[in-house]
Amino acid sequence: MSTNGTSQTYEKLTKRIREYQTLGACGSLLSWDEHTIMPQKGAEFRSEQLSLIAGMVHERSTAPEIGDLLGELQNSDLATRPEAPEAVNIREVSREFQKGRKLSKEFVEELTLVTSQGQHAWKKAREKKDFSLFLPYLEKVIALKIKQAETYGYEQDRYDALIDDYEPGATFESVGKVFAGFREELTPFLKAIQDSGKKPKREIIERHFPVGAQETFATGAAKAIGFDFKAGRLDVTTHPFCSGIGPGDTRITTRYNPNHFPDAFFGALHEAGHGIYEQGLDTSYFGLPMGQAVSLGIHESQSRLWENLVGRSKAFWKRFYPDAQRYFPQALSAVALDDFYWAVNDVRPSFIRVEADEVTYNLHIILRFEMERALINEEISAADIPAVWNEKFTSFFGITPPDDSLGCMQDVHWSAGLMGYFPTYALGNLYAAQFFAKALEDLPNMYENFAKGEFGELKKWLNENIHAHGQRYPAEKLVELVTGKPLSHAPEMKYLNEKYGPLYGI
Amino acid sequence: MSTNGTSQTYEKLTKRIREYQTLGACGSLLSWDEHTIMPQKGAEFRSEQLSLIAGMVHERSTAPEIGDLLGELQNSDLATRPEAPEAVNIREVSREFQKGRKLSKEFVEELTLVTSQGQHAWKKAREKKDFSLFLPYLEKVIALKIKQAETYGYEQDRYDALIDDYEPGATFESVGKVFAGFREELTPFLKAIQDSGKKPKREIIERHFPVGAQETFATGAAKAIGFDFKAGRLDVTTHPFCSGIGPGDTRITTRYNPNHFPDAFFGALHEAGHGIYEQGLDTSYFGLPMGQAVSLGIHESQSRLWENLVGRSKAFWKRFYPDAQRYFPQALSAVALDDFYWAVNDVRPSFIRVEADEVTYNLHIILRFEMERALINEEISAADIPAVWNEKFTSFFGITPPDDSLGCMQDVHWSAGLMGYFPTYALGNLYAAQFFAKALEDLPNMYENFAKGEFGELKKWLNENIHAHGQRYPAEKLVELVTGKPLSHAPEMKYLNEKYGPLYGI
Repeated sequence: MSTNGTSQTYEKLTKRIREYQTLGACGSLLSWDEHTIMPQKGAEFRSEQLSLIAGMVHERSTAPEIGDLLGELQNSDLATRPEAPEAVNIREVSREFQKGRKLSKEFVEELTLVTSQGQHAWKKAREKKDFSLFLPYLEKVIALKIKQAETYGYEQDRYDALIDDYEPGATFESVGKVFAGFREELTPFLKAIQDSGKKPKREIIERHFPVGAQETFATGAAKAIGFDFKAGRLDVTTHPFCSGIGPGDTRITTRYNPNHFPDAFFGALHEAGHGIYEQGLDTSYFGLPMGQAVSLGIHESQSRLWENLVGRSKAFWKRFYPDAQRYFPQALSAVALDDFYWAVNDVRPSFIRVEADEVTYNLHIILRFEMERALINEEISAADIPAVWNEKFTSFFGITPPDDSLGCMQDVHWSAGLMGYFPTYALGNLYAAQFFAKALEDLPNMYENFAKGEFGELKKWLNENIHAHGQRYPAEKLVELVTGKPLSHAPEMKYLNEKYGPLYGI
Repeated sequence: MSTNGTSQTYEKLTKRIREYQTLGACGSLLSWDEHTIMPQKGAEFRSEQLSLIAGMVHERSTAPEIGDLLGELQNSDLATRPEAPEAVNIREVSREFQKGRKLSKEFVEELTLVTSQGQHAWKKAREKKDFSLFLPYLEKVIALKIKQAETYGYEQDRYDALIDDYEPGATFESVGKVFAGFREELTPFLKAIQDSGKKPKREIIERHFPVGAQETFATGAAKAIGFDFKAGRLDVTTHPFCSGIGPGDTRITTRYNPNHFPDAFFGALHEAGHGIYEQGLDTSYFGLPMGQAVSLGIHESQSRLWENLVGRSKAFWKRFYPDAQRYFPQALSAVALDDFYWAVNDVRPSFIRVEADEVTYNLHIILRFEMERALINEEISAADIPAVWNEKFTSFFGITPPDDSLGCMQDVHWSAGLMGYFPTYALGNLYAAQFFAKALEDLPNMYENFAKGEFGELKKWLNENIHAHGQRYPAEKLVELVTGKPLSHAPEMKYLNEKYGPLYGI
């Protein structure tokens, strides 16, 4: 095919993709709206709308014409320079297309229906602390996820087929190896913290923090670290998330607890981190892989980086603690910075993942990772979950969940069919620590600048080193290119040691 | 075709319609969001999304398959009983389909583009008070609307083809006849008011009304008259509107002026009136004519009825004025109910339509109606608008707009291609008065009940007599069926006389 012909084909392809991605973005807005401000009686119709849009996007993204265009392009000169934007777009669209084509419209519709029912059942069962109400739905979901994995196909482990949806290229083996080394150091590290007998004054952050002031304070901090409110919003929801609606429109959410400071504040920083990634993507490639996030793990690295490595650092609070004292005089005026800093960095085993500290959080994930893999490989069944969970939990943390709502039913993911998703959370922590260590090498005054309220150089570093690439490199390769080393738990452990060593005298 | 075959065909048709209407509802949400809470940088992409959705809806609603299904159904037994839901749906979908088919996709896209540019140009020109900046765009819009009218076709007047988009069945002649009789009585009536020399203390409603209290008060009143906030929301926008997103989700908007009480309050009641209509439609017919509003005129009758006939009545304020005094003690504690009531019913010529009182409002509309018709019939050209406007305005109101922003550039409609739309506003007033007079016959204690804060019987009356019918009857016939008489200006003039006679001693 002539160069001219090739570029016309490429234009045709990108036009089609942009079209169904624009449609998908309508779905993002519908979904954002559903979870933030939709009137309650709109729920039933909203499900219908979302399912219609999902079906249309699936149909369009797997249309035979896309395959034809990709076929023409794959051996063209546009595909020869692997890191050129056109080649990246062709490669990644092909990958998605091949996967999408394997799923029939019927399967997608069934999965949508079953997971929608599953989520409702989960919600009820969780409220009533009764796993048996959830079990029949969960069984259906797991059966479908197994079917999906078999339909996708895999080389080594059935679970690999599912991880790939969220962390392309990652496998049970590759992730498992990193997690194993990580856990080996993490467990004695946690034990040392516990054995130290030291504890911060946790009640400091459990005082009364008026919601209005929390909102203003969190918004200001999200803005200060670089989330652009002219291209985004911060709203309230039950389960916080970030949604990139489209170019110039990224929405983050949080939830306010008047008697627990960290929820809303670190939640907002976390989602702002996701949002800064979305806002840092190249909008000229909207809808195309060059303008999309690499993987959920890399996405999570951006949120955890701002939430924890920045937002829970001493330098950050040097800048923001005086503000906090002004916003919350009743709770904080008599509290010293060091006491507050320690209170927001309290490490102790707890039941709920989303409330866990930086150290124990990873163990919550490793537990889920192991269980998911066993479920998908039918080594355990859905009915075994509560017993297996509690046994594992006790061995990991030394405490046993008093009921399944504080145990195996705390997360929405499985009910929603998100299996293979959990490992990306801990991967995010590891990527974050590795990126941050490198950024600190490149920007040696970073902490001093945080203390002055200056976060621009770090944001720029992330924009240039990570965001601008879109999906040019797979996560694994991106980490190596940016940091010079393959992914490892070493930077995370180094960070945890340096931070928590002094706090707990270990 | 067998009865069974017919009903399958009907099912197929309604499924298809529901599908594109569900897609259209995505467009409604995108548009609502754009005009209320969207981050500013999202504007460009949002236009793209809206245009994509509009194109898809147009394509689907005019697909040949719809025509085939309609063809099969039109002579079937389902179409024989003209007021049966199925027959209504077949009839009205056919009507829309025939019209839609006449417009090519290219035309729809061009109109979308030109009116989008037109609105931007209008906004700038209006700010700069410079009609010449708007003129070239307006010329393009008018040319397209003439083309549209010619494409649709018409029997008598080219303008009829455009009115029909908003008020099906209405013509320049039929509307013109009603307006002529109306104006004949309205003009001397206004003159008598002016000659009375009486004026309320208008500064009462121009005091400081804190926005927060306005919001709470307006929300409470919208709820009291029957707008269901579990199936709707009230938000802030620049140009207030009501949007029926879908079953269980109707959104109204208003805007707050801290130094002018009526804007937000009556705006909210007005939109709540539209909202109550939307919420009163039969959701089981969502997307189908039986579940849709009859016409813009009938829609406007519902908003004007609640805004004016209810919301500006003495009985209403007997109930709400003590609340108003509590919400706005600084502005109102020393003001008597009668003075406040008169201040919100101040009649005097003014430049801006949306700020006009119940009496002069109609003249604003008649002026636009005459000008639109002349423009579409090429009796005047776009360049003539400022001069013709000012001349007419002076003859109607005795005052001359000092600039075009207070004159011919005050409304967005023409820039947006909404020609033939304006008459529905005054029709709304006439329908409202005629419906209300009949409701008062059926519910003789209505005013007494308003004074007690009870609006349920009126809402129920509207639900049963108007909303529940969807598009079963054309507007013209609906009015006759409900009130026993064809549309006339008599009930409106009677209402105005009875209300303003005592106030102005005429």
